[in-house]
Amino acid sequence: MDYRGIFEDAVDTLRAEKRYRVFADLERIAGRFPKAVYRDADNAREITIWCSNDYLGMGQHEKVVAAMQETAGAMGVGAGGTRNISGTNRPLVELERSLADLHRKEAALVFTSGFVSNEAGISTIARLMPDCVIFSDQLNHASMIQGVRQSGMEKKIFRHNDVAHLRELLSQVDRKRPKLIAFESVYSMDGDIAPIKEICDLAEEFGALTYIDEVHAVGMYGPRGGGIAERDGLMERIDIIEGTLAKGFGVMGGYIAANRSIVDAVRSYAPEFIFTTALPPALCAAARASIEHLKGNGQERLMHQRQARLTKAILADAGLPVMETETHIVPLIVGDARAVKAASDMLLDKHNIYIQPINYPTVPKGTERLRITPTPLHTDEMVFELRHALVSVWTALELPREKADAAITASKLTSGDLTLPSLGG
Amino acid sequence: MDYRGIFEDAVDTLRAEKRYRVFADLERIAGRFPKAVYRDADNAREITIWCSNDYLGMGQHEKVVAAMQETAGAMGVGAGGTRNISGTNRPLVELERSLADLHRKEAALVFTSGFVSNEAGISTIARLMPDCVIFSDQLNHASMIQGVRQSGMEKKIFRHNDVAHLRELLSQVDRKRPKLIAFESVYSMDGDIAPIKEICDLAEEFGALTYIDEVHAVGMYGPRGGGIAERDGLMERIDIIEGTLAKGFGVMGGYIAANRSIVDAVRSYAPEFIFTTALPPALCAAARASIEHLKGNGQERLMHQRQARLTKAILADAGLPVMETETHIVPLIVGDARAVKAASDMLLDKHNIYIQPINYPTVPKGTERLRITPTPLHTDEMVFELRHALVSVWTALELPREKADAAITASKLTSGDLTLPSLGG
Ligand SMILES: Cc1ncc(COP(=O)(O)O)c(C=O)c1O
Ligand SMILES: Cc1ncc(COP(=O)(O)O)c(C=O)c1O
Repeated sequence: MDYRGIFEDAVDTLRAEKRYRVFADLERIAGRFPKAVYRDADNAREITIWCSNDYLGMGQHEKVVAAMQETAGAMGVGAGGTRNISGTNRPLVELERSLADLHRKEAALVFTSGFVSNEAGISTIARLMPDCVIFSDQLNHASMIQGVRQSGMEKKIFRHNDVAHLRELLSQVDRKRPKLIAFESVYSMDGDIAPIKEICDLAEEFGALTYIDEVHAVGMYGPRGGGIAERDGLMERIDIIEGTLAKGFGVMGGYIAANRSIVDAVRSYAPEFIFTTALPPALCAAARASIEHLKGNGQERLMHQRQARLTKAILADAGLPVMETETHIVPLIVGDARAVKAASDMLLDKHNIYIQPINYPTVPKGTERLRITPTPLHTDEMVFELRHALVSVWTALELPREKADAAITASKLTSGDLTLPSLGG
Repeated sequence: MDYRGIFEDAVDTLRAEKRYRVFADLERIAGRFPKAVYRDADNAREITIWCSNDYLGMGQHEKVVAAMQETAGAMGVGAGGTRNISGTNRPLVELERSLADLHRKEAALVFTSGFVSNEAGISTIARLMPDCVIFSDQLNHASMIQGVRQSGMEKKIFRHNDVAHLRELLSQVDRKRPKLIAFESVYSMDGDIAPIKEICDLAEEFGALTYIDEVHAVGMYGPRGGGIAERDGLMERIDIIEGTLAKGFGVMGGYIAANRSIVDAVRSYAPEFIFTTALPPALCAAARASIEHLKGNGQERLMHQRQARLTKAILADAGLPVMETETHIVPLIVGDARAVKAASDMLLDKHNIYIQPINYPTVPKGTERLRITPTPLHTDEMVFELRHALVSVWTALELPREKADAAITASKLTSGDLTLPSLGG
């Protein structure tokens, strides 16, 4: 049996489709974010990162770094076991309290990542409800899709952010069956926002539970960083709020926040929670410092929105095809795997700017893009440098300049994607 | 729809079966491991932890703590994105190199946890092999079971460590179909060891790939801490070695090590790898410091084995029902959920000793136990204190004193468990 051949063929397929990924070897520099050191074969040089999901730069905030360092010094670097065996450490208990408070919920439960929190949260909640039906947005993230699949429950995929379609699907299902509507607040690739209020209205009308992924919003929206649902005064209408500690909060880990009975059930039944080592105390302390800082402080959020608006305006003004978004995410559609890779390479080689190409399966084919994420720490000068670099790359590679809007992604999904979702941020 | 009622009922079921878990709120003290601070409603006191999976105490080793602190200071606390987007940091690249070297493989790939590495590793490898059949040990860990399920491939469960049964199952399958044999080296609840050589012989005979989980062995066995396969000179006969950074190495994260084509395929196809934030540089640096220390230094391993042997001898000598094991794991079978909980509570309340009760679904019903894990940092004096405490609890609660052996766990599995494995360390 030629096993090596099987795996090599699988990878060759990706190469042929120009979506084989080579990871750039980067070294972040605390205190100088968004600068980093990039290494290739023979040298190292300083570059500017324009695609970080450490959206607010909290990963290098001095309070957050100090919390990690102090806690590592006081309690060591690991949790020492699963939550049950010896992993329920004090900083983790305090972190869960801080998260429950952030979302004004009775309880919160921390997982090793946002991916795992979605997989465990959705699958366990659905499995515990006999004969449940899951209604899942067509563009939900891979981790949510995995949770849906793993539940083994019936699923219905509604067209992206399409409330009328959701209503249609809900009305087809027996009123007596338990229902779970799973969606995101900010969709990370197009930067568009779900109609949360309308979805909650439907949930109420049809007696469904609501599960929202606020991974790309927590820390960044709402008076205390509780996300879009907080900003819009809708947190208490959502049953389960899921988030990450790795993006706006800058560390690592994921969570759900909900009423006590839901959290206790997931805690008690989810294998992804029960059978894995708990998050280290030092990470928990860092995450909590970040959350608490952002609860009490709107400065990062203000600057974040300002730099995102500035970047969009300046790039659009230069004739670049900036997708209109309501959020901090600035996609530039290129629409071809080979071209987006060439653009990314040229930015790095010629302009010391790092923006990873985004292609299938992260976005549908035909919507390959550069995804730019301005942070509060990108200066105005950096924004102008970015414009200059992009214009010169767009010219050199003769890339398309037509304006795209958020509908593009959904429009590129084939009907097959509705029943077999393999996409997701 | 009474959703709250549904979740409360689910949890009440656990309460009724006495397997509702309450996590103890602990605070580890770096430099004083295995001591920790335990908090209940109204006070805090110092206790000794006897059930940590930080088996060698590396979670508080000064080099490891310093690596985390320094790297957090230099590069911040988070990775800033998925591996593709901005998460491939230098310490992570170096960590993967160190792991590949540890297992003498061409490459290694790091995941956010050992759980995720099993889920992603097994499911992706199996999915990439058309029409593959997975042969899985009956007592495989929950994360391996999840990987098997998720692959959607045909599976055959062989009786625990039963090479004859494995042969029988292998011989039933068409020689032309790809095959994957998935098993552990050290089974963490009974402390027994798989017949690795015999399994490799069968794999060769029937043309199967071998996948071993060395989670409870890496760092602890073999001249450089490569695990049981290294100790027995069998590493190169295993195709995929999976391990954790969270137990012997004391930090957090998981990995696979294999040839370049397998690692590249998993890297390119596994959603659990692609769609999640990478491990923070500070964690990677800490893990690497721990691995490299243990590669070059056998002292921790020697002391670990010494204290494990001492503990087993002293407890057995005191008439306690110590399960005979070949490893560092010291199970004391109680055999009843209520009794094991009472024993654990009494140890904590009266003797300031912390050993979590282990019950279903971690072990089969009827094999509930205390699982003791001596480390190099448990002094001889602590071992004698432990004996004293256990004897007094055993007497007070009139617990069984019959000797148990490793066969007990497998013997308690019903035939249903063979087809529907819900167990796993
Ligand atoms: C919408 C969404 N949910 C969940 C996740 C997973 O979060 P984490 O990176 O913490 O695993 C991501 C991205 O990583 C995401 O984009
Ligand atoms: C055999 C086995 N494999 C994998 C894991 C998961 O490793 P981690 O804790 O790093 O998720 C565990 C326990 O946690 C285990 O016992």
